Amino acid sequence: MERAANSITPLPVIPELTTLGRIRGWWRGLAASLAAAPRGAARDRATARLVARLRQLFEEARARRGGENAVRNRAAWIAAIYRGASLPQRAAILRLVTHEFAPDRAELAAAIAEVQAAADADELARAEARLRLALDAPRAKFFALFNLLPDGVKFLVDLRADLLGLIAQDAGLEVLRVELDSLIERWFDPGFLELTRITWQSPALVLEKLMAYEAVHPIASWTDLRNRLDIDRRCYAFFHPRLPDEPLIFVEIALVKGTPGSVQALLDENAPAADPRAADTAVFYSISNTQKGLRGVSFGNLLLKRVIDDLRDDLPNLKVFTTLSPLPGFRAWLDQALRERHELLPAAEVAKFAAAVGHAAPETAIADSLARADWPNTARVAQALRPLMEKLCARYLLREKSGAHPLDHVAQFHLGNGARLNRIYWLADTSARGLRQSYGMMVSYRYDLEEVERNHERFRNGGRLAAAGRVSRLLG
Amino acid sequence: MERAANSITPLPVIPELTTLGRIRGWWRGLAASLAAAPRGAARDRATARLVARLRQLFEEARARRGGENAVRNRAAWIAAIYRGASLPQRAAILRLVTHEFAPDRAELAAAIAEVQAAADADELARAEARLRLALDAPRAKFFALFNLLPDGVKFLVDLRADLLGLIAQDAGLEVLRVELDSLIERWFDPGFLELTRITWQSPALVLEKLMAYEAVHPIASWTDLRNRLDIDRRCYAFFHPRLPDEPLIFVEIALVKGTPGSVQALLDENAPAADPRAADTAVFYSISNTQKGLRGVSFGNLLLKRVIDDLRDDLPNLKVFTTLSPLPGFRAWLDQALRERHELLPAAEVAKFAAAVGHAAPETAIADSLARADWPNTARVAQALRPLMEKLCARYLLREKSGAHPLDHVAQFHLGNGARLNRIYWLADTSARGLRQSYGMMVSYRYDLEEVERNHERFRNGGRLAAAGRVSRLLG
Amino acid sequence: MERAANSITPLPVIPELTTLGRIRGWWRGLAASLAAAPRGAARDRATARLVARLRQLFEEARARRGGENAVRNRAAWIAAIYRGASLPQRAAILRLVTHEFAPDRAELAAAIAEVQAAADADELARAEARLRLALDAPRAKFFALFNLLPDGVKFLVDLRADLLGLIAQDAGLEVLRVELDSLIERWFDPGFLELTRITWQSPALVLEKLMAYEAVHPIASWTDLRNRLDIDRRCYAFFHPRLPDEPLIFVEIALVKGTPGSVQALLDENAPAADPRAADTAVFYSISNTQKGLRGVSFGNLLLKRVIDDLRDDLPNLKVFTTLSPLPGFRAWLDQALRERHELLPAAEVAKFAAAVGHAAPETAIADSLARADWPNTARVAQALRPLMEKLCARYLLREKSGAHPLDHVAQFHLGNGARLNRIYWLADTSARGLRQSYGMMVSYRYDLEEVERNHERFRNGGRLAAAGRVSRLLG
Amino acid sequence: MERAANSITPLPVIPELTTLGRIRGWWRGLAASLAAAPRGAARDRATARLVARLRQLFEEARARRGGENAVRNRAAWIAAIYRGASLPQRAAILRLVTHEFAPDRAELAAAIAEVQAAADADELARAEARLRLALDAPRAKFFALFNLLPDGVKFLVDLRADLLGLIAQDAGLEVLRVELDSLIERWFDPGFLELTRITWQSPALVLEKLMAYEAVHPIASWTDLRNRLDIDRRCYAFFHPRLPDEPLIFVEIALVKGTPGSVQALLDENAPAADPRAADTAVFYSISNTQKGLRGVSFGNLLLKRVIDDLRDDLPNLKVFTTLSPLPGFRAWLDQALRERHELLPAAEVAKFAAAVGHAAPETAIADSLARADWPNTARVAQALRPLMEKLCARYLLREKSGAHPLDHVAQFHLGNGARLNRIYWLADTSARGLRQSYGMMVSYRYDLEEVERNHERFRNGGRLAAAGRVSRLLG
Repeated sequence: MERAANSITPLPVIPELTTLGRIRGWWRGLAASLAAAPRGAARDRATARLVARLRQLFEEARARRGGENAVRNRAAWIAAIYRGASLPQRAAILRLVTHEFAPDRAELAAAIAEVQAAADADELARAEARLRLALDAPRAKFFALFNLLPDGVKFLVDLRADLLGLIAQDAGLEVLRVELDSLIERWFDPGFLELTRITWQSPALVLEKLMAYEAVHPIASWTDLRNRLDIDRRCYAFFHPRLPDEPLIFVEIALVKGTPGSVQALLDENAPAADPRAADTAVFYSISNTQKGLRGVSFGNLLLKRVIDDLRDDLPNLKVFTTLSPLPGFRAWLDQALRERHELLPAAEVAKFAAAVGHAAPETAIADSLARADWPNTARVAQALRPLMEKLCARYLLREKSGAHPLDHVAQFHLGNGARLNRIYWLADTSARGLRQSYGMMVSYRYDLEEVERNHERFRNGGRLAAAGRVSRLLG
Repeated sequence: MERAANSITPLPVIPELTTLGRIRGWWRGLAASLAAAPRGAARDRATARLVARLRQLFEEARARRGGENAVRNRAAWIAAIYRGASLPQRAAILRLVTHEFAPDRAELAAAIAEVQAAADADELARAEARLRLALDAPRAKFFALFNLLPDGVKFLVDLRADLLGLIAQDAGLEVLRVELDSLIERWFDPGFLELTRITWQSPALVLEKLMAYEAVHPIASWTDLRNRLDIDRRCYAFFHPRLPDEPLIFVEIALVKGTPGSVQALLDENAPAADPRAADTAVFYSISNTQKGLRGVSFGNLLLKRVIDDLRDDLPNLKVFTTLSPLPGFRAWLDQALRERHELLPAAEVAKFAAAVGHAAPETAIADSLARADWPNTARVAQALRPLMEKLCARYLLREKSGAHPLDHVAQFHLGNGARLNRIYWLADTSARGLRQSYGMMVSYRYDLEEVERNHERFRNGGRLAAAGRVSRLLG
Repeated sequence: MERAANSITPLPVIPELTTLGRIRGWWRGLAASLAAAPRGAARDRATARLVARLRQLFEEARARRGGENAVRNRAAWIAAIYRGASLPQRAAILRLVTHEFAPDRAELAAAIAEVQAAADADELARAEARLRLALDAPRAKFFALFNLLPDGVKFLVDLRADLLGLIAQDAGLEVLRVELDSLIERWFDPGFLELTRITWQSPALVLEKLMAYEAVHPIASWTDLRNRLDIDRRCYAFFHPRLPDEPLIFVEIALVKGTPGSVQALLDENAPAADPRAADTAVFYSISNTQKGLRGVSFGNLLLKRVIDDLRDDLPNLKVFTTLSPLPGFRAWLDQALRERHELLPAAEVAKFAAAVGHAAPETAIADSLARADWPNTARVAQALRPLMEKLCARYLLREKSGAHPLDHVAQFHLGNGARLNRIYWLADTSARGLRQSYGMMVSYRYDLEEVERNHERFRNGGRLAAAGRVSRLLG
Repeated sequence: MERAANSITPLPVIPELTTLGRIRGWWRGLAASLAAAPRGAARDRATARLVARLRQLFEEARARRGGENAVRNRAAWIAAIYRGASLPQRAAILRLVTHEFAPDRAELAAAIAEVQAAADADELARAEARLRLALDAPRAKFFALFNLLPDGVKFLVDLRADLLGLIAQDAGLEVLRVELDSLIERWFDPGFLELTRITWQSPALVLEKLMAYEAVHPIASWTDLRNRLDIDRRCYAFFHPRLPDEPLIFVEIALVKGTPGSVQALLDENAPAADPRAADTAVFYSISNTQKGLRGVSFGNLLLKRVIDDLRDDLPNLKVFTTLSPLPGFRAWLDQALRERHELLPAAEVAKFAAAVGHAAPETAIADSLARADWPNTARVAQALRPLMEKLCARYLLREKSGAHPLDHVAQFHLGNGARLNRIYWLADTSARGLRQSYGMMVSYRYDLEEVERNHERFRNGGRLAAAGRVSRLLG
């Protein structure tokens, strides 16, 4: 704290304006020549100019010529060129990087030879050290340059997002991802993450990002946001010292008595705020990752554990920690399964349903009923559907797999964290999105500290997925 | 800042007390069995128990069994065992780590084969990615575990200090250093460093570390320290978010009119404080690295640049940025050179000196004069010595090399940063330490923004060392 | 700062919820009885209950019975009763306070007798001390109770706003205002004010208050607000430690090259942000006091001085500090003056104007022209009006008085601060509000450090109002 | 917090240096003339110069000439003159202030006439308002000027310390104290106090003040201080926003199992730190007010209540909150009572004691025994003394009064706060100071939340002092 007050902003921000202005001008010039030249010569010349400039910058970067300022300016140039480029241009730049900053082939061959000649474990260890250094060399060093820029880490995270998309078509870029990941995994080690509570006292700069990033139940307005930060709510995020205004992941929580059966009730802006100290249940109703470029670098499990710790400290009355979660793939799975006439339910139950809703053909009764937009409001249909849908839900979540893991990625996340599937909620999300994704069904995953580690281990080892008795019984 | 207030301490500190208590008990038991057994069987059994326990922890670490808490507890155990171990035991533990967490040999061989078989640059890049992953695997992952501990980064930094010492005798540990460096270099990327001004308002916890770490001009007491933080002084340090109370490197500065000719004058606790806004010169009179385990990870250059920026912003009157530096190796070099009768100075000057001090043998006159403890206070001797010593100083700093670099490591640091050797100060450090290291000589290195980059480049390319005319002329 | 981290929130906030709930219930009961009783008995009984409860609380307050908690709860009750009351009820409560907490009459008479009997200055001083204590006693002590509540200072500020309104009809309340002012002046001593820069990093809680309080150029949306906090803008506020989320006064500033001739240009959300370091002029385009209850406690002068100091430190390129200000009373004054046929302008100029716009009756030509809504867009009229309006403006600002002071309160504020009237801007605020208040005219007041103290003194002494030559000349 | 980061230091500190330099020079000149003139003319001239300068400054202050800077500079001059003055000179300056800034006599007389003529309560209230304003005027306004200085509040607090001393001889200054108190009481309203935990992380600047101010058990060194801030200790202080680095009052606490019977055990630097979470008792072993000038403005009660709240939140295991307190007046009282042969104890017990220690004269046996320096280490004497001394202690604390209050001011403080006298400790402070003050006796006052308010009320109403049964029984 003392230091926070005395800390001196490490890297200039505003000075970049001028540089960026010049770079944007340069790009506009380049774009103009590219556009003006119908094809052929002029376009080639423009591209050639770009490539030549990049090669020069790369050359200087490799030599690390000049002091800190020179290195930083060079990195700023490369970043600006990259940011100004189209996706195909970016792919070309990344390919350039791959080859310009490849390891020295002779040194690599020599190190490999040493590994292969190693006579014992000690010799092998020494040879591995040499091989490590030979490989380590230039690509990672190139990326590390950008850490000198104020927004350099963000730049590399965004570049990684590009890379993840491009690798599908260009496996040669895989090595860049490996190098970049070795940096990013270190920079985003859990020890660097700062758990922060977000309130209406938080900077507007951060709050507007929450509005932009919320993926599960979109935030409609500043008023909606303020409602989600009221005294009977909590919002936590992980931040990172190098992305000071970017929440990496955040979770929204309602503090209530008993788990509510509907997310619309939770989000109602007109509902009065309750006394959080009287709440016995914390409902995690939305978890959003914000950085595409950090896909695969998982913060969610850690976030939930830390948040539960903090809530327990702060509000000792809280006994239940649970989610109210969507089933994003349920409808897609069910529609396909119904089309393909899987034996999803016992014939007798299906027949009973068809009779109840007056449908002549049991085999299409469910699909036909769900196809009508007004089914949720048609009491007879809804009532008859409910027991069937709850069974289908349980089956979808606990039995359907993608490889070794649950098909539903939300289920995969929470069950993998050690939660149990606790309950199925009928018509709990009646928004257009809720009906479109899961016919309005929602579920709760419950985090019980006594069983979390055990469930997690069993999940890792491919054992039975944890579920409350009332849910397991739905599997028949 | 908003977040600073809301930030939630990420990792528990006090809970460790209990764990540590148990671990200490366990070590005491082990040490007792080791001590009780004069040799042979019992000692072997105790060691075997240690090794068995470690192997079990390693096994669990490799499997990453359990949740975050389990992983953290395991890391805490290993850290405590390591901390409780003697240096030879530590060496043994590190060898265990090297081999237990070696890369998978089959996967390594396969990746090597792929590299060797690569037909073109793209195939080679793909193969390099695989090789990178094969090598990357277990040792670095093992070290990364400790980042989960509140003091884990400090633990690894200290472990690295051990490693740097042990490698000399055991080259097989080199691979561990390479792996550890790949973590540490990322964690200590310049972007993570926080420049902080240290004042009498800083936490006592930090100030007592300054007292412990100051290596150039030791701090005698809290009163001495307060004097060095008075309004006509500045002290800056780099901190790191994972070592929040550890200054990594710090610099002490006096704000004065004109460069003073004596460090004792600067450190005089009875001298009145001057108005810093009237100062024209910032004298960097002490720079101390604090973490042995970060040797080779250089912060000094960056620190000086940032500090100069901050001072220029804060006190626009400052025109001169200079050091008042020791020559730690001067006396050792000179004594040896005099013994070995190098032709250090023109014979005429030496003869003139011998005559002036009434010494019969010119060839030993200088050495004999310097050998008398009271020479600095003997006006005739001191006066006659001064021109000779200044020439010897210039020669020592600008001509004597260790490989491509200046022999004196302080000179190497500042000249490498782009400073110029500006002036030689006669009897500027008359403390016991100053006389022992350099016969009381000191020098100033001056940082002129217009020439820093040029000097730095010339230094890198092996060109002439930058020196003021009055110093160069001493080379004759 | 260290302390900021360790500071412990002094007063509970959430516990109040329950108390407030109970109090609201009590008020609802009271209101119901009042409403149910058409007149007479029941209503009187309800009022009697309220008064009885208050008297009991007052009695306990006077006796200061119980510990800190008891005193605080009692203050919370009184505050809640007051907040729940209608304005006439509030007046009644304040009258109760005036009489319940009046000084002791006997002690007052005794002290007065001592003052009157004092034989010399020393005796008089002693008697004044006694009189001071006799007077000081109960009313101020009563108000001071509320400082124990977390929002007690805000409560008293709001109560003062009531009081200022009520005094007009009930001079007996004046003594309460005097007592309250003696508290509030101390609590809001300049030394307690914190100058704070407001940015898009500021808490949303504070920003939404800016939106609510901005009185000069209303803020239309969060986007409008963000535009006003862009890098070429500044916003500063004074805060007070006891009203931590309430800006007391704030000023909005544009950093530009040259003073712009139109406030619409300044507020254009689509205009690109400029580099603030290139700006030479800081335009204070809006200053808003936020607390009605602090009317007469002036912060504006101090705010501007401090802000100018901070801007000069931060952006040494700034040479000009000026406002772009409204003339809120110009149209009202002009319309009346035209109606009353004051000799505002030389007849020749008026006649020339009437001819230019083709109006038969010079004596009503100006009024009639201005009465047409489209005059600003009618080039011929606007062009002919301009020189006349500028002269009228100068006269309004520099000659028209209310007592000793300029009639226009914005002019009074800036000229009183020591600024000079620098320039008159034609059609510079074409918003509906701008046309309604001042026929679109705006002016700039310039703060020149060399003349501010001189102008201020001359203003205090009733001397000539400071104006630039080009404006003075308009007075003819 | 956001604001903390953006807050701009409100008042300059360093610029004062120059002014202060000039003022010091002026004082030195004055002092020199005073010293040089043996008596008479020259000395009178020097004093006259001082008085003339002050009158001029007062004149300007009354006229509030100039802007904020002028007012501030003037206040700085007066403050520097005052600080440079000797105590008699200060008294003279304060007398000058009393008379120079007296209320306007005519206005005062008119207001008094209005009060005396008031026909009803409303007229009286209006007249009181006028009288309030007439009195309020100049002295308080004069003092309020100093709040503009960075250290102005501290200046007035120190001035109040002078005033408290001077009033004894010069009752005419009482009115100044009354005026000053009306400012200081407002500035130090509880709402402005910040409860802060002091740790080894606190600024050295604050810690060195703890060392200077600790009055009960002096802090011997930085090492002693660090021991008192270890993890099984707590230290809390109240701070004020206008004295940011001055703890106003602080309390030192040990977290232990069971109340220790000796303060030396608590302060032992070599004792290991215990786990605070295992403690059941918080022992308040030292409470120190730091500002002489705030005598009579009581913070202690509030501090203890807030600290107990914070400890209960933080460490729910704590069940007992108690002091280990000195009896500063016990020995003085006892020595005098023994000299005056009060019937302090039953004759039989005294005789039995005399026999036990072999003393011939029972009436002087106790006094004579205590007069021997080695009595605490003489087992026979100590053992025989103990029951008598415990009874004397109980009598001293619970029966001896000064007016309506306990004679012992520590007892008065804690019993007045609502604590009960819980236990008497034999030879619990064997330091030289402990023996000198209270023959080594200490006592504990226990804060039981259930009885604190009740005890406090009973104390206020002159009821029985609260004491545990085992202590009451000692009264016989």
